Amino acid sequence: MNKLIEEKIKFNGKRLKVIEKTYENSEGKLYKRECVEPGDSALVMPINEKNEAIFIKQLREVIGKVELEFPAGIVDKDEKPEDAAKRELEEETGIVANSIEHLITVYPSCGYTNEKVHIFVAKDFSKGKVNLDEDEEILEIEKIPLDKCFELAKENYFEQATLNLAILMYYFKYIKK
Amino acid sequence: MNKLIEEKIKFNGKRLKVIEKTYENSEGKLYKRECVEPGDSALVMPINEKNEAIFIKQLREVIGKVELEFPAGIVDKDEKPEDAAKRELEEETGIVANSIEHLITVYPSCGYTNEKVHIFVAKDFSKGKVNLDEDEEILEIEKIPLDKCFELAKENYFEQATLNLAILMYYFKYIKK
Repeated sequence: MNKLIEEKIKFNGKRLKVIEKTYENSEGKLYKRECVEPGDSALVMPINEKNEAIFIKQLREVIGKVELEFPAGIVDKDEKPEDAAKRELEEETGIVANSIEHLITVYPSCGYTNEKVHIFVAKDFSKGKVNLDEDEEILEIEKIPLDKCFELAKENYFEQATLNLAILMYYFKYIKK
Repeated sequence: MNKLIEEKIKFNGKRLKVIEKTYENSEGKLYKRECVEPGDSALVMPINEKNEAIFIKQLREVIGKVELEFPAGIVDKDEKPEDAAKRELEEETGIVANSIEHLITVYPSCGYTNEKVHIFVAKDFSKGKVNLDEDEEILEIEKIPLDKCFELAKENYFEQATLNLAILMYYFKYIKK
C-alpha cells in the first residue's frame, strides 16, 4: 500500500464529503486521489408471498429521471447493515420484513468513492408504518413477478447497478440449480 | 420533474466535479441535492479462447485495498463507449479485442452521482501494446475459468458491483438456457 501523506477536505456537504488525498508510491513519487465519502448504504429486494418483487418509483434529480428502485438508504452510525435494510424498507413502503438474508456486499465505484452497498432479500411481511425522510418522495409502488424480473434484467430494463445485482444474485443463490 | 433553480460548483478537481443543485417541488418548496460528476465509464470482461476471464489487480487507494478488477476507464468526449472499452483493454493489458458485445449499462449510485457504466464482453484477442495512464499501475494479471467465476461471484468473492454484474449478466445472456 502506498503511503498516505496528506488529506485535505475539499467539500463538506449535507450528504457528501470530498477529500483530496496525497500518496507517495514506492519510488517516492507523489500523486493525488479525489475521494467521495457518502457513507455506506443498505438495499433490500422485497419479495411477497406471491413471488413478486416490490419496487418503488423515485425521482432521481442527479440523473434527471424517475427511477424504478428497491428500497435503500444510508446505514446510520452504530447500525447493522441488515437493520438499516429493514428500517428503510418499512420507512419507504410500510412493510415490516420478518425474514432478511444477505445477498452480496459491493463497492459501486471504488475509483472515487469508498461507499459500500449491502444488499439483502426480504420476505415474510407484516404491516408497519411509512415514514419518509425530509425531501424524500415515493411516487408509486410497483410489483413485478420474479420470473418477469429475470427477463427484464437480461434486457437491461432496470438501470441501477445494485438493483440488477440484487435480482441476478437472487437467481444465482435461490433459483439456479 | 421538479424545477432546477440554481447550480453551484462546490468542487472542481482533476477527476471529479461536485455541484450543489437547488430544486423546487410541486408545492413550491426548495431543496438541495449534491451531485458528483465523474464522467461516464466503460468496463470490459475479457474472455480468452480457453474460456478464462482476464482480471487485473490494481491498488484502489480510496478503499485502501488491492482489487481484482476488469479493465475499465473513463469514456472520452466524442468517444463511443465500446471504443473506450477496447481502448482501456489494450492500454491496461495489451490485448486487442476483435469481438466486443454490450452486456448492460447501469448507474452505479444515482442518489449522488450521474456516472453511467457501460459493460461489455470482449473475445477473439490479438496482441497490442500496454500504455498506462500517469499514476496508473497494474500490479498483476490473473486468469480465472468462467465456471469458477460464477461460483466465486455467488460467494461474494469479488467486491465490485459492476464486475459482479458483468459476470452474472454474461451467465444470463450466454450460458443460462
